[in-house]
Amino acid sequence: MKKDAHPEPDDRDLFPDWLQTDPLVVRRTLSVPPPSLEDNTADVDRLVRTLHRSGFSPVRVDPSDLDGISSRLRQGDFTVSVVLGYREDHWALLEVDAGASSEPVLGLAVDLGTTRLAFYLVDLEKGIVVDRRSEPNPQIPYGEDILTRIVFASAPRNRKMLQDLLLNTFRDVTARMSADNGLDPNRIFALAVAGNTTMSHFLLGLNPTNICKEPYIPVANRFPFLRGRDLGLTMHPGGLVFVFPNVGSYFGGDLIAGILASGMHRRDELSLLVDVGTNAEVVLGNKDWLIACAGAAGPALEGGVVERGMMAGPGAIDHVRIDPNTLELRYHVIGEEKPKGLCGSGLIDLVAEMFMAGILTIRGTLNRNLECPRMVETDNGPGFVVAWGPETADGRDLVVSEIDIGILLKSKAAMYTILNIIARKVGVSLQDIHKFYVAGTFGNHIDPVMAIRIGMLPDLPLETYQGLGNTAGRGAAMVLMDRSLLQDMERVRNRITYVELNVNVELMHEFRGATFLPHTDPSLFPSVPIPKRAREAV
Amino acid sequence: MKKDAHPEPDDRDLFPDWLQTDPLVVRRTLSVPPPSLEDNTADVDRLVRTLHRSGFSPVRVDPSDLDGISSRLRQGDFTVSVVLGYREDHWALLEVDAGASSEPVLGLAVDLGTTRLAFYLVDLEKGIVVDRRSEPNPQIPYGEDILTRIVFASAPRNRKMLQDLLLNTFRDVTARMSADNGLDPNRIFALAVAGNTTMSHFLLGLNPTNICKEPYIPVANRFPFLRGRDLGLTMHPGGLVFVFPNVGSYFGGDLIAGILASGMHRRDELSLLVDVGTNAEVVLGNKDWLIACAGAAGPALEGGVVERGMMAGPGAIDHVRIDPNTLELRYHVIGEEKPKGLCGSGLIDLVAEMFMAGILTIRGTLNRNLECPRMVETDNGPGFVVAWGPETADGRDLVVSEIDIGILLKSKAAMYTILNIIARKVGVSLQDIHKFYVAGTFGNHIDPVMAIRIGMLPDLPLETYQGLGNTAGRGAAMVLMDRSLLQDMERVRNRITYVELNVNVELMHEFRGATFLPHTDPSLFPSVPIPKRAREAV
Repeated sequence: MKKDAHPEPDDRDLFPDWLQTDPLVVRRTLSVPPPSLEDNTADVDRLVRTLHRSGFSPVRVDPSDLDGISSRLRQGDFTVSVVLGYREDHWALLEVDAGASSEPVLGLAVDLGTTRLAFYLVDLEKGIVVDRRSEPNPQIPYGEDILTRIVFASAPRNRKMLQDLLLNTFRDVTARMSADNGLDPNRIFALAVAGNTTMSHFLLGLNPTNICKEPYIPVANRFPFLRGRDLGLTMHPGGLVFVFPNVGSYFGGDLIAGILASGMHRRDELSLLVDVGTNAEVVLGNKDWLIACAGAAGPALEGGVVERGMMAGPGAIDHVRIDPNTLELRYHVIGEEKPKGLCGSGLIDLVAEMFMAGILTIRGTLNRNLECPRMVETDNGPGFVVAWGPETADGRDLVVSEIDIGILLKSKAAMYTILNIIARKVGVSLQDIHKFYVAGTFGNHIDPVMAIRIGMLPDLPLETYQGLGNTAGRGAAMVLMDRSLLQDMERVRNRITYVELNVNVELMHEFRGATFLPHTDPSLFPSVPIPKRAREAV
Repeated sequence: MKKDAHPEPDDRDLFPDWLQTDPLVVRRTLSVPPPSLEDNTADVDRLVRTLHRSGFSPVRVDPSDLDGISSRLRQGDFTVSVVLGYREDHWALLEVDAGASSEPVLGLAVDLGTTRLAFYLVDLEKGIVVDRRSEPNPQIPYGEDILTRIVFASAPRNRKMLQDLLLNTFRDVTARMSADNGLDPNRIFALAVAGNTTMSHFLLGLNPTNICKEPYIPVANRFPFLRGRDLGLTMHPGGLVFVFPNVGSYFGGDLIAGILASGMHRRDELSLLVDVGTNAEVVLGNKDWLIACAGAAGPALEGGVVERGMMAGPGAIDHVRIDPNTLELRYHVIGEEKPKGLCGSGLIDLVAEMFMAGILTIRGTLNRNLECPRMVETDNGPGFVVAWGPETADGRDLVVSEIDIGILLKSKAAMYTILNIIARKVGVSLQDIHKFYVAGTFGNHIDPVMAIRIGMLPDLPLETYQGLGNTAGRGAAMVLMDRSLLQDMERVRNRITYVELNVNVELMHEFRGATFLPHTDPSLFPSVPIPKRAREAV
């Protein structure tokens, strides 16, 4: 949400209070009773017995490690430091060092996004994020959108190439992050990756062809644990590689991670999670049930479709204020630069403020009764100047057209309609929602007051809304720190119902009402003061 | 036991009646419900679900197999033939073929002996031994005895070499056996190896140094399941490799296999198992308890120490009969050749028949009161000609000296003493033994009547005795056919007590009595008619 009200989560608050500190990989220093004629259990069996007594059972040992374990036990005079990885049905003995050890035990969480990859290097003993990085998805040259990449990947050679692009980025980023922090990448014993179903297939080199063909069947929904060496990653060769499972082709591990990040699946109260990306993905539920759906509501909201729209980043106008009396306009630019365009939150602010100032009618058209020098005629029809040429990065007027506004209003209407439909499906009212989570950068920047004013989000108490930032990366990092979330994941997968949104008459009717500002039924938005000018001008 | 009475087990009776047919590796042809919009579970998860419903759970899939499973499911129109390997806590999905398959599912059982390796190629679906081979242990040039090899193996390079020697023999034999039977070695999905603790360490490249140093600690007693590819074996790369666990340094997987082969651990009645090799290893017990010990009784019994002794094989005299009236001697030679020497059973026959004919006194000395041209004087003192020069392979008289006979009598006395001591340890009488199993080639050749006459085996009803042949190979083959034996193995390991035989006064006293023919206390051998001549001559 809005920067001032809800700061972007930083390293300290990536992990919620309710999270346990039971990492996926743990280290213990153990004193094993030395052998004698009376107790002549073999070396490895002796260590396994001690681990069993310390609560680690069953322990599986890699056959190639047997000799090393024996010699390190003896080097350390039967005191060893062991690193164990949790693999649900057993513990894998990843490292045995003679004596006590103070080397760090690290994990890497990855948000495997279609557009960007985000990396979080986590110290599993201290429970802190050591470093984070973000890189563009290296597959973009082979398709901006995922469908183009799926078609490209139908040839096994191309599939291999797309996989290698990802793995090489993983290797590069890991090597750089480790070096920059003076850490040995071999100390990374766990990797948790959350991505959508197709991206997870790309990472594992799986054929994604059937994901986009009816009846939309992935190769696998659950992926076996891999080892670092299986993918040639820059980490401990025996380290765990965990790829989040999917529910299906259209509900991937990124959303499972999102649910975990919100904690909604553990609470009695009703929560709603919205992730706005290429689609708007919505999950509603509590600890007993979860329902999910997706709809095409996203691009305009993220600033992707509107002519001067852009992703949140340097040069993007993210906040706009208009004085309703003087019609004076102020804006804020990310990075304090000259503006290049508007990001999602900037657009939402703009439309909300134009509406509040009576510049926009409740239909979303420019109020031609109003005298305002910013209202101009362009090649695309009537428009509104957000920034004049001399103020902008490229020297051209930054204009948002009536057409652009229409696109945004269709997106916000789609969002609002989806929320209503999903609530109605399970017989709850949006008013019953206790927590409303907004994922993504979008979620960190938008101001819920503004989003309610344009009728995009329901008119709920402001404290209901919470921005969660990168929920895929956060969920992945949380699994590194708390292995009990692996069970949560299975519960979520078994409990979730995915509903298809069918375009029907009822939906279209609802959608049309929701394209108004804030809605054709203003009683749905009692907190929004509809300006007289905006109503009269229709 | 004696060839006529108890034929050497052949392919048909390698598997006892009580064995279940639940092999370590199984194949199933399954029809998986095809996906639909209503049931859009992913391909691999769909197959796993069907396997689960067929009783295979949990199933683990190799990450590198995911794509292939999906494409073969679709090639076979969702009918596939799968091969699954049992790994105690899960089933490993080893192969998925489109449609039904009629390719064989094979396993290989190996007796990893210090002197010889024996291989049994088993058809796991038909439950038959397809072929068997035996090869000298290729490590012999680096030490006839295991201790020399352990010392040699203290250098890691030598250890690697000893391991490679074994693995190369495995590869060669598997390739030859497969080719000779028109089979693809990739159809071998399981390998079960039973060897003593040191040989198992050699096979896995483990450091055996501590096995022969107090307190005699192996690297490991239980070995993790390996895959064919881990050892680069000529078999299915994902196929199971199971190495029998040890109880300790001096009680190896070969003896565990022997116990399984006898089935003694499943019966109420008391059984005794003797394996005569470098040591005589003895196990006594029933389904509730097992006690084991070992003693130096072996070499002479197997024909290893006596001057003209040899292993059972072509050219070895394995049977001897002497007419007590005429003192005429007849013998049988393995392979119907000219004799080269005597194997264990030939020696035992010879001594028993010499004793019955009064040629030997109850002290085991030649009866000098007797006129017999076969009694001669040699460089080693008095001796007895078994075959005259013109009859033998090398043209020299085949003579057994009084010294040789003395060695044999010490061995048989050691054996009898060990049996008595172990019985006394648990408070049972040898008369209570319901089944007395004799393992090894030795067990297949000796005649219990003769062994009782010399006082080597207790005077039990003849039907008590049963030769089991190669119990290590047999036990390994049985595990391939009946995976429930994996649990038996753990029960046996947990239940067995290994006792050290301490040389003390009592033992020495007993031992001395047992060096007589059949014993200083003839009431222990009521069935043995002691010839007047043998008694008078003392």
